[in-house]
Amino acid sequence: MSNIDLDLLRQGNRRALAKAITLVESKLDQHRTDAQEILEEILPETGKSIRIGISGIPGVGKSTFIEAFGQHLIAQGHKVAVLAVDPSSPLRGGSILGDKTRMEMLSREENAFIRPSPSEGALGGVAQKTRETMLLCEAAGYDIILVETVGVGQSEYEVAAMVDFFLVLMIPNAGDELQGIKRGIMELADSLVINKADGESVNLARKTKSHYQNAFHLIKTGNFWNPRVLTCSALEKNNISDVWDMICEYKSAAVEHNFFHEKRANQNAEWLKKLIHELIDMRLNHSTEVQATMPELQRKVINNSTTPYKAAKQIVDLL
Amino acid sequence: MSNIDLDLLRQGNRRALAKAITLVESKLDQHRTDAQEILEEILPETGKSIRIGISGIPGVGKSTFIEAFGQHLIAQGHKVAVLAVDPSSPLRGGSILGDKTRMEMLSREENAFIRPSPSEGALGGVAQKTRETMLLCEAAGYDIILVETVGVGQSEYEVAAMVDFFLVLMIPNAGDELQGIKRGIMELADSLVINKADGESVNLARKTKSHYQNAFHLIKTGNFWNPRVLTCSALEKNNISDVWDMICEYKSAAVEHNFFHEKRANQNAEWLKKLIHELIDMRLNHSTEVQATMPELQRKVINNSTTPYKAAKQIVDLL
Repeated sequence: MSNIDLDLLRQGNRRALAKAITLVESKLDQHRTDAQEILEEILPETGKSIRIGISGIPGVGKSTFIEAFGQHLIAQGHKVAVLAVDPSSPLRGGSILGDKTRMEMLSREENAFIRPSPSEGALGGVAQKTRETMLLCEAAGYDIILVETVGVGQSEYEVAAMVDFFLVLMIPNAGDELQGIKRGIMELADSLVINKADGESVNLARKTKSHYQNAFHLIKTGNFWNPRVLTCSALEKNNISDVWDMICEYKSAAVEHNFFHEKRANQNAEWLKKLIHELIDMRLNHSTEVQATMPELQRKVINNSTTPYKAAKQIVDLL
Repeated sequence: MSNIDLDLLRQGNRRALAKAITLVESKLDQHRTDAQEILEEILPETGKSIRIGISGIPGVGKSTFIEAFGQHLIAQGHKVAVLAVDPSSPLRGGSILGDKTRMEMLSREENAFIRPSPSEGALGGVAQKTRETMLLCEAAGYDIILVETVGVGQSEYEVAAMVDFFLVLMIPNAGDELQGIKRGIMELADSLVINKADGESVNLARKTKSHYQNAFHLIKTGNFWNPRVLTCSALEKNNISDVWDMICEYKSAAVEHNFFHEKRANQNAEWLKKLIHELIDMRLNHSTEVQATMPELQRKVINNSTTPYKAAKQIVDLL
């Protein structure tokens, strides 16, 4: 067992929390084992927060928004943890989200805890470590967890799969430039928030809002929640409270429709399935026999000289 | 080796083809092995068709559309195979797609081959068998494969993952009733075709078309193809040729942008990965130890009394 004082962590001690997170993020086998023991011990204290995913392409003002949003929440008496899933680090060289020095005001708050993205993930990737960090923050008394990511590749799906509410930040824009939005986003978002609705952009923001409202209207799902489009200005701290009010309204509705806890239970079950497959992938990757056979088989499958079924069977028989 | 005459199959003999498909659909271990040998032998003759997925909720007129579309293609000198992935059979009792008696005219055509959905799937599910059947049809000289499914659950994704072009049929509709469209569809569809644009519905169909064009416009991806929205009447055989012209245009563009074969290669590689995991799942399901442990572990994970990581490790260690 590690030397981390879990009672201190439960009391909200930042050093104990930071040490526990470092342990969770470690790649050493012994640390992984210790981390899992800690996580299991604190599980009863977890789950009491609302977990909010915040995504958006670079340039939408994520940091400014989170700073303003976080300060608003703290002013209302909440404890806010800001975590990040940054798909760019470290393999593709350099992080997209930058580091924690971005949110200067928020980082000075007693009731805010900001943790940059883990620099790399072993099993389950960076997302797995962020999941585990989220649990530690909950045990330390943070009742609102913001998980930040960029609108790039797989990371949005990973974040959406660990939060209660998924919010996508956008900028005022119209016409042709609107097309940058990825198709999948409409499927993930519980809300789009058009940031930078200030100065000369106020009208454009309103137009953008109605554009997306129409799009959502066309494809709305008909369950208890229809994705909402809001506008705000993080810079001028305008309409920030609307965003929080909306999330509270979502939570009430989700709890009332028995969806809130069901969603979390499903996320956990899915996560278990994913981890089983990842652990098996790890074994496949560590098997020298599999590694010697795989490239040739993949080539054969792609070139149509063997069937995927035959190739798969050959691989699994090596396990 | 089975007693199926592959030379006859290659010459387009319908009986040889039907026998080979029956073998592919069999659940017996020996039949699976025989089927894989046949598939490997005919692989060089496969891949020369265009594979088109056709989806739509019950009531959009899929059978009528496929009948009209198939007859149009045959009149142009093509050989058309119609396969189906019916997610409803057999577990949930009764098929949604019905059986082949639906397409009466088409089924009498010499150059059409209609095969209902396999009644159940072993490995890879119903979709795996349809994939394999598709290869057999290609070897038998069918140069257009239509894979039909319903807009329900996972089956659309499965079909989209095995075809070159994915077409979603819809009905003229507007306002509130439009909302039935699933969010994910926008991500899958290469084209929406509004069927039943006839009689009093012509105007409504035009409106519906512009609705969806707007929605696609908002979320378009910016690569070489932007999803198109067409209208047609399968009943009156109006604008059916537009659909085929569009697909030909798509194919030219996809080939020109090196996307056509790349997409198939990726589909094959993904399929291999999926089959490896399914074979492993099968082993997990057949392991009495795993089966004895799993339910309790799942409950623990959902109730937060163990971490997904710990549970996953316990399962994999049993393999």
